[in-house]
Amino acid sequence: MNGAQALIRTLVDAGVDVCFANPGTSEMHFVAALDDVPDMRAVLTLFEGVATGAADGYARMAGRPAATLLHLGPGMANGLANLHNARRGRTPLVNVVGDHARSHKRLDAPLESDIDAVAGTVSGWVRRSLAPEDVAADAADAVAAAAAGTIATLVLPADVSWSEGADVAVPVPARPAPRVAPPVVDDVAAVLASGEPAVLFLGGDAMTAEGQLAAARVTAGTGARLMSETFPARAARGAGMPELTRLPYPPEMAIAALAGTKHLVLAGAQAPVHFFGYPDVPGHPVPEGCTVHVLSAPGEDAVAALQALAERAAPDADPVLLEAERPELPSGELTPRSMAAVVGALLPERAIVVDEALTSGVGLAELTSGAPPHDWLSLTGGAIGDGLPMALGAAVACPDRPVLGIQADGSAMYTISALWSYAREQLDITTIVCDNGSYAILQHELERVGAASDGERAGQLLDLGGPDLDFVALATGMGVPATRATTAEELADQLQKALAEPGPHLIDAVLRR
Amino acid sequence: MNGAQALIRTLVDAGVDVCFANPGTSEMHFVAALDDVPDMRAVLTLFEGVATGAADGYARMAGRPAATLLHLGPGMANGLANLHNARRGRTPLVNVVGDHARSHKRLDAPLESDIDAVAGTVSGWVRRSLAPEDVAADAADAVAAAAAGTIATLVLPADVSWSEGADVAVPVPARPAPRVAPPVVDDVAAVLASGEPAVLFLGGDAMTAEGQLAAARVTAGTGARLMSETFPARAARGAGMPELTRLPYPPEMAIAALAGTKHLVLAGAQAPVHFFGYPDVPGHPVPEGCTVHVLSAPGEDAVAALQALAERAAPDADPVLLEAERPELPSGELTPRSMAAVVGALLPERAIVVDEALTSGVGLAELTSGAPPHDWLSLTGGAIGDGLPMALGAAVACPDRPVLGIQADGSAMYTISALWSYAREQLDITTIVCDNGSYAILQHELERVGAASDGERAGQLLDLGGPDLDFVALATGMGVPATRATTAEELADQLQKALAEPGPHLIDAVLRR
Repeated sequence: MNGAQALIRTLVDAGVDVCFANPGTSEMHFVAALDDVPDMRAVLTLFEGVATGAADGYARMAGRPAATLLHLGPGMANGLANLHNARRGRTPLVNVVGDHARSHKRLDAPLESDIDAVAGTVSGWVRRSLAPEDVAADAADAVAAAAAGTIATLVLPADVSWSEGADVAVPVPARPAPRVAPPVVDDVAAVLASGEPAVLFLGGDAMTAEGQLAAARVTAGTGARLMSETFPARAARGAGMPELTRLPYPPEMAIAALAGTKHLVLAGAQAPVHFFGYPDVPGHPVPEGCTVHVLSAPGEDAVAALQALAERAAPDADPVLLEAERPELPSGELTPRSMAAVVGALLPERAIVVDEALTSGVGLAELTSGAPPHDWLSLTGGAIGDGLPMALGAAVACPDRPVLGIQADGSAMYTISALWSYAREQLDITTIVCDNGSYAILQHELERVGAASDGERAGQLLDLGGPDLDFVALATGMGVPATRATTAEELADQLQKALAEPGPHLIDAVLRR
Repeated sequence: MNGAQALIRTLVDAGVDVCFANPGTSEMHFVAALDDVPDMRAVLTLFEGVATGAADGYARMAGRPAATLLHLGPGMANGLANLHNARRGRTPLVNVVGDHARSHKRLDAPLESDIDAVAGTVSGWVRRSLAPEDVAADAADAVAAAAAGTIATLVLPADVSWSEGADVAVPVPARPAPRVAPPVVDDVAAVLASGEPAVLFLGGDAMTAEGQLAAARVTAGTGARLMSETFPARAARGAGMPELTRLPYPPEMAIAALAGTKHLVLAGAQAPVHFFGYPDVPGHPVPEGCTVHVLSAPGEDAVAALQALAERAAPDADPVLLEAERPELPSGELTPRSMAAVVGALLPERAIVVDEALTSGVGLAELTSGAPPHDWLSLTGGAIGDGLPMALGAAVACPDRPVLGIQADGSAMYTISALWSYAREQLDITTIVCDNGSYAILQHELERVGAASDGERAGQLLDLGGPDLDFVALATGMGVPATRATTAEELADQLQKALAEPGPHLIDAVLRR
């Protein structure tokens, strides 16, 4: 058995049986070995950023890592931005990065670069397999490391892959998330019993249905307010869930949302900071005089902690949960708000929403809150271009669930070739492109940083017109059927049809500018 | 004057007056300042890999650096693969990477990452501007560092950009390339006079017309063979130039090309190594017993060294130069060879050819060698996806010259949004997509590494069909007029029309598989 075969078999035995791949020469033995290990599903992407973003979306929905297969340093570099998002979302993920054969490494061949340095910026675990005898154990360690909520990067020299003498390794048992100690729960319960204004602030695994329901009991019984991080990796939403305010993105609104809070209790989340610094604005929204309490840190078992806290602080509380309620189907102009109403009116049960709508997403949370139960994936690290790939991964993870991508136009162009993989795999993904013809978020930011300028040349850098992008042509050019909607009625009609038909669809929603 | 204004003015004063940009929030003051410094031309790209590849192509043709404007660590990451190519081609280039405000840096905001580590893998010079008073001098130093043939990366905190108190800095005078000492020339002349089989091996600035013509005098007078590196950054070619064999890419062919050589004399090039290691193949093609001599190392003045060597070793030599000669326009099937014949028959004078044809480019060098004088840009670092962006940069650098991109289909998808920038800037770029519907190079490589497999699942990872990519739809969707050619006659007809008409055009050349 060669190294590649042992590696793939070990990955499969450890539960990693999907690989999003964009291979090159140094990965050819891995590719060849796929025919020996049929339990590994390889999904071809046309760009590494699609592979890594797909692995991110896959793990968020499957709850276990996918692998990526990347070609040396430049392949890893192309996947790095979406690995950044995965790192920020604590997504478990295993990169397999092919490298030159060990004997070739010292020759400084054209594709030689410092893979380890690049990998180190996003990975919680990096290892280079130095011998075919080691590669399977390395792979088992990689999966175990990833399972704890990090990116594990295994650098695989080509000759370690092609050499005989390897053997399958036994998976390393996963360690459960650490439990929070009872005195921590008692301490938080005492804080909440004080009656001072408090916010219970959720993130990470506290955003599961179990976590949110336990948290809602706590807030119902104590009077604390319930809030979550701005961009959770995955959130259970819809009818039957508690009302949960996300901390707003704009600094002024985030500051207002937390104003007067005396105790900020974190469950699965870190203390919030603003996305960017701005002139004369503090860097975070936590008020002066507010004490931050950690019920559970990211990686600890937030659900168990919240359940224990509910038992301790609010044993008889009966939280108010959201009723099933949808907006009316709107008519007339297609705006971000009417788009959100269409989504709210039509969102199918058990849908997975991948939200990279950015500025066009303003009404989405409100108008989908009473929709049938669904999951919501956000852009965790701010590196745009994760949306289309995440939808790919989510659809591979959950083939029986509809995936709805709501995608800003400028960000879509970062990883547009994801659409080709949708078509190849015939995945049930509907993509709504929020086509406002601009980097609208930057037009807001240009004003916010105080750099407001009427200058024509600055404006041109934020404008996606001249020429307009034709997303219908782009999608059909990659095998995804596509239509264009210019009114709310057209969007509703096209979305209904797209959701009813299996396979991928794209709707270019031309939003009034 | 704020930091951004001082930075841009200093760049312009130092000769850097083009910036390929994909900005974000932290770069908004740079964007605003563009209206204060009209001499800086900002070209918007929809993805950072397009910006960095364009800066690579620009500098190869302009002979001076362009700037890029990138958004924090993820923006730099997205541009990293083409920076790798630029590094391998010794392209002068200045990255401006926006970062969080200094006060925000410690807060670990979602977009925080280790920019310096990522930048260090490709840059010969990295600096973080720590105060508005320093930023202009930092920029001047960056340009001077880049001019020596490296990538200079300036990390620019948002508040250094927005704060007042900056002032323009005086450019740092560029240092000329080091001259080779006369004894080195004497030594090489003595080697070549020995009569033992020798190869004069060119790369870097030896690939200019002056360098090649001096080298041809040397080989005409000494009997040495003339050869060049496989993928030179820029090569002068066509009628009036000497015949110059590029070292072949496949290891077996490269080994055969150098077999029997006793002396390998390097001018502007490094000693060749194979792109990849393979089982039971040595890592480089230099024969045992062959002595490697360095006439000029990369970065030294190869032209002066070759001219001195010609005077010393072959003062009366009269080299044979290529006659003007074009192939007949072919008819019938569209194959890589007939495509090359069409290009050879129609290539305009002073064209800039950007060659990322990979396997489809087999006949190109031969069939264009007698075409009118032109320049040829190659993929220097093996990180695919540089072709479309390089053509963008070359066209910005040389608006009076036609640019012809010959582009493999799989590689095109890495940075396909470059086409949108072609259309926005209305650049005179004709792109021929070599549409063979596969990662053909990997199909060869799969066999070569000895991993030959008839396996269907391996094969699927190298096949771009199912669905076929429609490059006509993709190009028109980004505003570039496009046609499809399925015969040699159609390609000839469409190429003639595209070259005759200003502005961008794309031809989807469907090559017989």
